[in-house]
Amino acid sequence: MVAQQAAAQAAPRPDSDVPESMRAAVMFGPGDIRVVDKPVPRPGPGEVLVKVSVCGMCGTDLKIYDGHFPGTPPYGSYTPGHEWSGTVVEVGETVDEVAVGDRVCIEAHHGCGRCENCMAGLYTCCLNYGDVAKGHKASGMTVDGGFAEYAIHHVAALSRMPTNVSDLDAVLITTAGTGLFGIDMIGGYLLGQDVVVFGPGPVGLMTAQAAKQLGARQVILVGTRDSRLARGRDLGADHTINARQSDPVAEIARLTGGEGADVVIETSGNVAAPQQCVEAVRRGGTILVVAFYPEPVTLDLSAVVRQGVQVHTTRGEGGNNVRRALALADMGRLRGEELVTHEFQLDDIAEALRVVRERDGDPLKAVIRF
Amino acid sequence: MVAQQAAAQAAPRPDSDVPESMRAAVMFGPGDIRVVDKPVPRPGPGEVLVKVSVCGMCGTDLKIYDGHFPGTPPYGSYTPGHEWSGTVVEVGETVDEVAVGDRVCIEAHHGCGRCENCMAGLYTCCLNYGDVAKGHKASGMTVDGGFAEYAIHHVAALSRMPTNVSDLDAVLITTAGTGLFGIDMIGGYLLGQDVVVFGPGPVGLMTAQAAKQLGARQVILVGTRDSRLARGRDLGADHTINARQSDPVAEIARLTGGEGADVVIETSGNVAAPQQCVEAVRRGGTILVVAFYPEPVTLDLSAVVRQGVQVHTTRGEGGNNVRRALALADMGRLRGEELVTHEFQLDDIAEALRVVRERDGDPLKAVIRF
Amino acid sequence: MVAQQAAAQAAPRPDSDVPESMRAAVMFGPGDIRVVDKPVPRPGPGEVLVKVSVCGMCGTDLKIYDGHFPGTPPYGSYTPGHEWSGTVVEVGETVDEVAVGDRVCIEAHHGCGRCENCMAGLYTCCLNYGDVAKGHKASGMTVDGGFAEYAIHHVAALSRMPTNVSDLDAVLITTAGTGLFGIDMIGGYLLGQDVVVFGPGPVGLMTAQAAKQLGARQVILVGTRDSRLARGRDLGADHTINARQSDPVAEIARLTGGEGADVVIETSGNVAAPQQCVEAVRRGGTILVVAFYPEPVTLDLSAVVRQGVQVHTTRGEGGNNVRRALALADMGRLRGEELVTHEFQLDDIAEALRVVRERDGDPLKAVIRF
Amino acid sequence: MVAQQAAAQAAPRPDSDVPESMRAAVMFGPGDIRVVDKPVPRPGPGEVLVKVSVCGMCGTDLKIYDGHFPGTPPYGSYTPGHEWSGTVVEVGETVDEVAVGDRVCIEAHHGCGRCENCMAGLYTCCLNYGDVAKGHKASGMTVDGGFAEYAIHHVAALSRMPTNVSDLDAVLITTAGTGLFGIDMIGGYLLGQDVVVFGPGPVGLMTAQAAKQLGARQVILVGTRDSRLARGRDLGADHTINARQSDPVAEIARLTGGEGADVVIETSGNVAAPQQCVEAVRRGGTILVVAFYPEPVTLDLSAVVRQGVQVHTTRGEGGNNVRRALALADMGRLRGEELVTHEFQLDDIAEALRVVRERDGDPLKAVIRF
Repeated sequence: MVAQQAAAQAAPRPDSDVPESMRAAVMFGPGDIRVVDKPVPRPGPGEVLVKVSVCGMCGTDLKIYDGHFPGTPPYGSYTPGHEWSGTVVEVGETVDEVAVGDRVCIEAHHGCGRCENCMAGLYTCCLNYGDVAKGHKASGMTVDGGFAEYAIHHVAALSRMPTNVSDLDAVLITTAGTGLFGIDMIGGYLLGQDVVVFGPGPVGLMTAQAAKQLGARQVILVGTRDSRLARGRDLGADHTINARQSDPVAEIARLTGGEGADVVIETSGNVAAPQQCVEAVRRGGTILVVAFYPEPVTLDLSAVVRQGVQVHTTRGEGGNNVRRALALADMGRLRGEELVTHEFQLDDIAEALRVVRERDGDPLKAVIRF
Repeated sequence: MVAQQAAAQAAPRPDSDVPESMRAAVMFGPGDIRVVDKPVPRPGPGEVLVKVSVCGMCGTDLKIYDGHFPGTPPYGSYTPGHEWSGTVVEVGETVDEVAVGDRVCIEAHHGCGRCENCMAGLYTCCLNYGDVAKGHKASGMTVDGGFAEYAIHHVAALSRMPTNVSDLDAVLITTAGTGLFGIDMIGGYLLGQDVVVFGPGPVGLMTAQAAKQLGARQVILVGTRDSRLARGRDLGADHTINARQSDPVAEIARLTGGEGADVVIETSGNVAAPQQCVEAVRRGGTILVVAFYPEPVTLDLSAVVRQGVQVHTTRGEGGNNVRRALALADMGRLRGEELVTHEFQLDDIAEALRVVRERDGDPLKAVIRF
Repeated sequence: MVAQQAAAQAAPRPDSDVPESMRAAVMFGPGDIRVVDKPVPRPGPGEVLVKVSVCGMCGTDLKIYDGHFPGTPPYGSYTPGHEWSGTVVEVGETVDEVAVGDRVCIEAHHGCGRCENCMAGLYTCCLNYGDVAKGHKASGMTVDGGFAEYAIHHVAALSRMPTNVSDLDAVLITTAGTGLFGIDMIGGYLLGQDVVVFGPGPVGLMTAQAAKQLGARQVILVGTRDSRLARGRDLGADHTINARQSDPVAEIARLTGGEGADVVIETSGNVAAPQQCVEAVRRGGTILVVAFYPEPVTLDLSAVVRQGVQVHTTRGEGGNNVRRALALADMGRLRGEELVTHEFQLDDIAEALRVVRERDGDPLKAVIRF
Repeated sequence: MVAQQAAAQAAPRPDSDVPESMRAAVMFGPGDIRVVDKPVPRPGPGEVLVKVSVCGMCGTDLKIYDGHFPGTPPYGSYTPGHEWSGTVVEVGETVDEVAVGDRVCIEAHHGCGRCENCMAGLYTCCLNYGDVAKGHKASGMTVDGGFAEYAIHHVAALSRMPTNVSDLDAVLITTAGTGLFGIDMIGGYLLGQDVVVFGPGPVGLMTAQAAKQLGARQVILVGTRDSRLARGRDLGADHTINARQSDPVAEIARLTGGEGADVVIETSGNVAAPQQCVEAVRRGGTILVVAFYPEPVTLDLSAVVRQGVQVHTTRGEGGNNVRRALALADMGRLRGEELVTHEFQLDDIAEALRVVRERDGDPLKAVIRF
């Protein structure tokens, strides 16, 4: 396949106005990202070349920028960016699921399709993670991503965007897919349930919004910044709790008649939050964790057992959940665009990363716009 | 416990304006229903006495009226009616979940709580069905029901109604619980799925409405009466198919890009419908049957196997799904009242049954109003 | 019902050789247990009176003895003991599931049957835990238990014992039910899976044994005492790891080809074990915790999320799993009796508790034998 | 990829004693199978070339032979055979899961890995069934299979065979995978359940055997030939019913205390069997269908709904269940070899097919042995 790709690169592109070269952000070392010229990649079998219209940034990009993310391609050629959308400009062999001109957005992960986890549908837990030869791809993480004018991805990780969904919406659709994959893992039937979401960042806000649409009786959003909590209420949260002003566990108990919430979703990454989840969930309830922590977490595991609580986790946007998110957005029931607070040109990517890291201007979601 | 109840009957009622006697419809034989005076029952431990405000009618009531429903109490005392709501007027020992003055609606079934199915949460499949001594009750079917001024039920089968939900809504809430129990059984996560509902009767219309609220991408409703299909569109169905005017299987194929629907829900009870479900569902999809048929059904079981389709069924409104329905109704996202097309006085119950049987005036949901 | 029971107590027992009085261990305060005379209880509706033949001891009994277990009945009358079996001598109203003369063993928990958790089958998470009036009973914990000549329990929590299962087996059957309930919670399909069990105590040994019978490819048992590990091998564990002699995580990695175990079950209660579980489980795998910890637990929650691991818990022997355990024991595929290392007379219960606490003579399972 | 394969064909094989040509059975038309010389195929990326040691026959092969199986390759080159095992002799690019010299057996199906069903783990329901370019392969059905000296398959569909498992066992391992996939679909936790298997053919016998190993309390096997029922008892069935001599529904009721079986598995393909399943299953129980029928099936669907029964189906050996079957066989708990009653040389394949069709000598499993 390697030989074949080389051959494909050499041949002139078929009737197409795709250029041979593009502008792309490339990592040259920790903290060293530069925008350079780079060949436009050619899609192999099952792959699709997309002209990127927008690529979002998240905390993972900061880890990558700092050189703390394992398994990335070599410095000097590696282009990050894993929340992107755009327009199909070329399709590889066998691809008929999308066509040139389609607007698409992505799931970051494409599994190898041949390990036991992929065969069981758990492709975000692919046992061949990072093994490009075997077909695994984590766009922007283990292969080149979307901080470039053009990007390729496997067609299985692409979803056609309905016209109702804008390019800026699309960035948050991938984010919503993260929360929905978690909701999928815990059964997906939130109707009539009391749902708490810790952390009003992009994942938390999209998850709170989706939970309400799925029929949660009460969505209770917990955070520390009033501006974000207000946004949460605007997106459908029934109650918000500023954890700096009141005790979230006590407030949740009050709002749930003393029983605790049916489902508690932790998206904050705050090391104190998991124990609060344990105290906020009802007997026999569910905790969902879709966050990463800077250090080990301490919690009352006995209480988890005594209460018969199940703790689920997901990573990424598996289970076709980006497609589910798109369906909801297409009905006008999942708003993403308004969470994009900062737009940058590709040439300003270093500045964009600084703004995200320093929370300069309280960015909720910053994106590179092409 | 029998002795105890007798004792309770004898004692004067505590500070209460509940009368000793009430008007109630009673079955005296097949096709012979009369409204007579009858003692107001007293709630035993865990039971609640409700002043009935409304009681709906469905096809099961016709079977009961005709004497074709097994396991009913003896003629001469038996009061049918299993879709009722009202106001709590007296609570039995140990009841603190509801209080006098609460408005409540019901699930028909209360399980024995001690058989293997009840212990596994399958209380609508109680292995002690009809065994009143062991605690099973199917209101209006194996014990007295709601075609009476007062009725008792176990507190576990009652749900408090939010103020947003009207008495007439409540009748359809129980009906919605039937569809939602089915949806619960198939996983409950309809987000982004193409869902077909066969049969625009009360169960079908409430189920189609709920499916859309749960985020189904397309809800396709199939029936034979344009007036009901129009109502379905009004309640949220994206497409309707009049099976007398076009082939539902072909139409569903067209609407789903040739793949068939993810989920097909059969509520019509038409013997031809199950085979249409088999032809309308996609490979690996799900069929849910919440209907009864006048005769055995013939279908291409090989196709079901070849396509890897799962066929689920539910009966009644189990799994706390009436409570889930109430939560959706409370948000204004599940409309029931407008499906009530005919209201009758208790004294006119025989006429009401005639209207339902003969479809006189195209009744969608007829109720007895107190 | 309270009145009724009092009435029942007053009446002479029907044709029966059950005495009016019995010997029973009673808690009089923390660390103060005495064997005294006490009336033989009468079974209410749905209840069964059992002549106890054997009652096991576990760590929970030590907490009760020390006064550290919440929700127990008042000192002066409270009889602990929650792992008991015996012979039916009297049945309450409506009971026909068992008959006088049947040998039975128990699940400790009987749910109220009316809260949302009980109605969903989660009766070990009953929201009315400890509310005897509403029907909840945790034998030996919230109501009197089996350290007495006679004990009552609800028939739903009793299982008839096959003749192949001895009285001593029965104590461990309840214990096996604990592990099997956990296995049930994680799906129950261990066939071909690599399963690790931390903690070769009674729960761990019975769980390891059951996992092998269910077709686990490899059962790996981790502990610190060679004698118990040897017993584990004898009961079916394929590999044992003495965590004092080698690193369990490294050994498990070696035995699973570097991928980690599909399922890791933590029964040890050692605060270091949960983190070892995190390191021992494969990507996309499952951790089951059926243990309690003396203090909060610290673990790498990010790794749990990154690996897409699910953490399940169960408490007690729910889901009809004691009946499942009995079926396996009846086939001769679940051995319990040989784990009973110490037998005591009821009069020696204080000494028995000392032996268990001080691990005097390395007791695996100590029982009171009648 | 097509070009690449051609290139690979042209190049001389690397250090290998694999010949350029082989003997293979080829379909030349309905009822016309001939053994001819054919080039040994070369494995593409992810594929493996296996020297076949044995290939079993089943009813599907008769349909193929008669020209009644859709989607097969063109006559003149197509080699059927989908139950085969052998030894790896060459691996394609990226394959390191197996090595030359490994003994392997197969799952027939390999999904495309990119459709929604494959991504959800339902690869036997691949939406690109038959689309070889997209990666789908059903060995011996949509691509060449194992009635040849050499065969290729995707590595994901191969499992390494433990030394305890013989070549002849392996044929039945694939068959067992069919039943286990069905058991997987219904939850996999048969412990303590009463399980009925209709149809003592290879699938039924392997399924009955596996069900007992998984801890079924009673396995009841229903058939019409005493010789096969006797074999079933030998393999672990607790009870057998000859449906020509007694009424299976009545017998099952008797054996299950009148309640019916928890799980009823239909493998017979007899059109009368599904209705018997409906009558034999308990309230709230499960029916699993892994059979095909010569005509539409008539059953009492109302009873299915009234009893709250779920009807599941599976096709093929998905969900990694061949690996699970191998684990059980490796422990000596799943016997396959003794079901092989007839062995033939490849040159005698037409005769072998005749014997299978005419049941000449009551073949249970006939194989081609190399």
